[in-house]
Amino acid sequence: MNYDQIFDQAIDRLHSEGRYRVFIDILRNKGAYPNARCFAGHNGPKPITVWCSNDYLAMGQHPKVIGAMEEALHDVGAGSGGTRNIGGNTHYHIQLEQELADLHDKESALLFTSGYVSNDATLSTLAKLLPGCIIFSDELNHASMIAGIRNSGCEKRVFRHNDVEHLEELLAAESPDVPKLIAFESVYSMDGDVAPIHAICDLAEKYNALTYLDEVHAVGMYGARGGGISERDDAAHRLNLIEGTLGKAFGVMGGYVAADKKIIDVIRSYAPGFIFTTSLSPVLVAGVLASVRHLKSCSEERDAQQASAARLKAMMREAGLPVMDSTTHIVPLMVGDPVKAKRISDILLAEYGAYVQPINFPTVPRGTERLRFTPGPAHTEEMMQELTNALVEVWDRLEIKLAA
Amino acid sequence: MNYDQIFDQAIDRLHSEGRYRVFIDILRNKGAYPNARCFAGHNGPKPITVWCSNDYLAMGQHPKVIGAMEEALHDVGAGSGGTRNIGGNTHYHIQLEQELADLHDKESALLFTSGYVSNDATLSTLAKLLPGCIIFSDELNHASMIAGIRNSGCEKRVFRHNDVEHLEELLAAESPDVPKLIAFESVYSMDGDVAPIHAICDLAEKYNALTYLDEVHAVGMYGARGGGISERDDAAHRLNLIEGTLGKAFGVMGGYVAADKKIIDVIRSYAPGFIFTTSLSPVLVAGVLASVRHLKSCSEERDAQQASAARLKAMMREAGLPVMDSTTHIVPLMVGDPVKAKRISDILLAEYGAYVQPINFPTVPRGTERLRFTPGPAHTEEMMQELTNALVEVWDRLEIKLAA
Repeated sequence: MNYDQIFDQAIDRLHSEGRYRVFIDILRNKGAYPNARCFAGHNGPKPITVWCSNDYLAMGQHPKVIGAMEEALHDVGAGSGGTRNIGGNTHYHIQLEQELADLHDKESALLFTSGYVSNDATLSTLAKLLPGCIIFSDELNHASMIAGIRNSGCEKRVFRHNDVEHLEELLAAESPDVPKLIAFESVYSMDGDVAPIHAICDLAEKYNALTYLDEVHAVGMYGARGGGISERDDAAHRLNLIEGTLGKAFGVMGGYVAADKKIIDVIRSYAPGFIFTTSLSPVLVAGVLASVRHLKSCSEERDAQQASAARLKAMMREAGLPVMDSTTHIVPLMVGDPVKAKRISDILLAEYGAYVQPINFPTVPRGTERLRFTPGPAHTEEMMQELTNALVEVWDRLEIKLAA
Repeated sequence: MNYDQIFDQAIDRLHSEGRYRVFIDILRNKGAYPNARCFAGHNGPKPITVWCSNDYLAMGQHPKVIGAMEEALHDVGAGSGGTRNIGGNTHYHIQLEQELADLHDKESALLFTSGYVSNDATLSTLAKLLPGCIIFSDELNHASMIAGIRNSGCEKRVFRHNDVEHLEELLAAESPDVPKLIAFESVYSMDGDVAPIHAICDLAEKYNALTYLDEVHAVGMYGARGGGISERDDAAHRLNLIEGTLGKAFGVMGGYVAADKKIIDVIRSYAPGFIFTTSLSPVLVAGVLASVRHLKSCSEERDAQQASAARLKAMMREAGLPVMDSTTHIVPLMVGDPVKAKRISDILLAEYGAYVQPINFPTVPRGTERLRFTPGPAHTEEMMQELTNALVEVWDRLEIKLAA
């Protein structure tokens, strides 16, 4: 047994496929977002423009959020000091769970340390409690849902992406007496398309299945109060569980599920990933509380972000760049090759001060490597023009074909 | 299929066993720790003394930690805005990883959103990469290690708690050509005993196994620089991976592993629980940096905490209370019944303003339900005397036998 050799081979595989990841060392400049400092290279930190943050609405910079966090920091201190059951259940946690339950028109909500953990812990626990449960999973579901489904040990049926007919075929093939759970996302973050929530809920009713909707790329951003696509489409009441993150549009960190009281009580009581972990720092929770409350009552950031995304898509399309067919705030540009995607990203950062990370396998299927832009309310028309010009120049330099 | 009925039964099981959990709603008072406000009951928040926090050294209240977090909050904002690979890799993260690698005399370290995730993600990923790997696991290992081991899909051999002979028996029974990983903890947090690290490393060398040590209840607290039991016992160099938390002695939130460069690179590149999640908030990371640096250079908190724990154990023993045989800072009091443990805890909180959570299954085996006290540097002699008196009174009232 030569452990070193096995680890070497694992790393070599990544290099040979051109998908070894190099993390870019940055610090954002609060108040000047999307501006940041980049510590790559020499001669000290260099100013860059961030084009790939999931702090979609720049709420991580919002004075209300910063103020609430500062207050909590001075009122109660840094960490919670324990699990939710043992000393780590603060008043902030309870208030935020009420606020999130209300956001989705559900009876209850439950906080987790991340969106990843909320998917993994909830799906695996729920399915384990239902004897013989079969999970129906969209083929493009996020890694955290796939982890939860696999860790549940249940049988899984994968339906083609957003394909309701295929889902029905799979549902109809199983006995009516078997527990069923349909797990899917509202906004698929690497393509920017949206699930047919009502059609899926119709099937869930017809075949008596539970529904689990991941709204991490939609909460805070869609619906009049930021309740996500399920609010926008008036479908929240038809879903059993809605899962969200506190680390993207809400600008901080953490995850949650919202559902009826009974389901939340079951997950709270049985999920190891919830029970055996130090709860979210009260400082973070206080910040999210301010963020959720602000976005419930104000659509300014949401509207500005949608306008930015539409503007950048239009500019790229006009310039002949291969912008993908997204119906949401995501602006993906297809490259189709991991080495080229990384090369474009490197040139943009080094020569243009534009930071956009290449997206490669396993985040997207091989052969669909891309750049993914997330313009926010603070990205100006001028920044977008500069970026588009830079992209056209790099496309030309690397002899990648523009659209006809 | 009646989903409601299944969920009802799951909750009923907990009630009937007396282990349905009720979270106590509190807020700590920064600067006055272990004092806190409790929101249970009526008439507004009530002052209590916290006896069960894992913020062992009260670093979550330390001015250096609070100051560093405030600075980061104003410099870069609330959240990181992305995964480590996509926009969420800040200069703070890199600095903290270097600091933690140095703490354990390792080449590298890797941050996770929690200690739970670091165990789950690292163990499952490492073992999956080693074809045919067998994991040797102490029977009292934490739920998060058990999750990682189960999620790896590998074979597992459980050895009796801290029993080196049994471990050797199990190791010797396997082929030398099979990859092996021994997973154990330094301080077992519910009993307060310590693993024989050197003896286990001897076996690892003899049988060519990798070693994985969970030090979550020891980092910051043992060793001249807070490197844990592995530093105190001069064993860090013999361990392949050391795992720790940022949410207990360091007072904030998060987890990590430290190891050689190659192992860290492999986990960084392959662990879904690391790759597909928003990175720790830079505010938290900045706080931990200050905390680790302070505890590396100063033993004041460590020494005071050890003195408090020794004092409380002695007082309880003198009073005839069934304090368990702990060789560390943990002060567990055996009750042996979930309903009685909860009843004692309820009386202490309601009548004496003393908050200690009952510990029941699945955190400890059934029949060993207990109260677990974690006196810190700020718990005074007077507080301890009051607590001991209260416990004797409650023991008497509930007609529980005192020791001879």
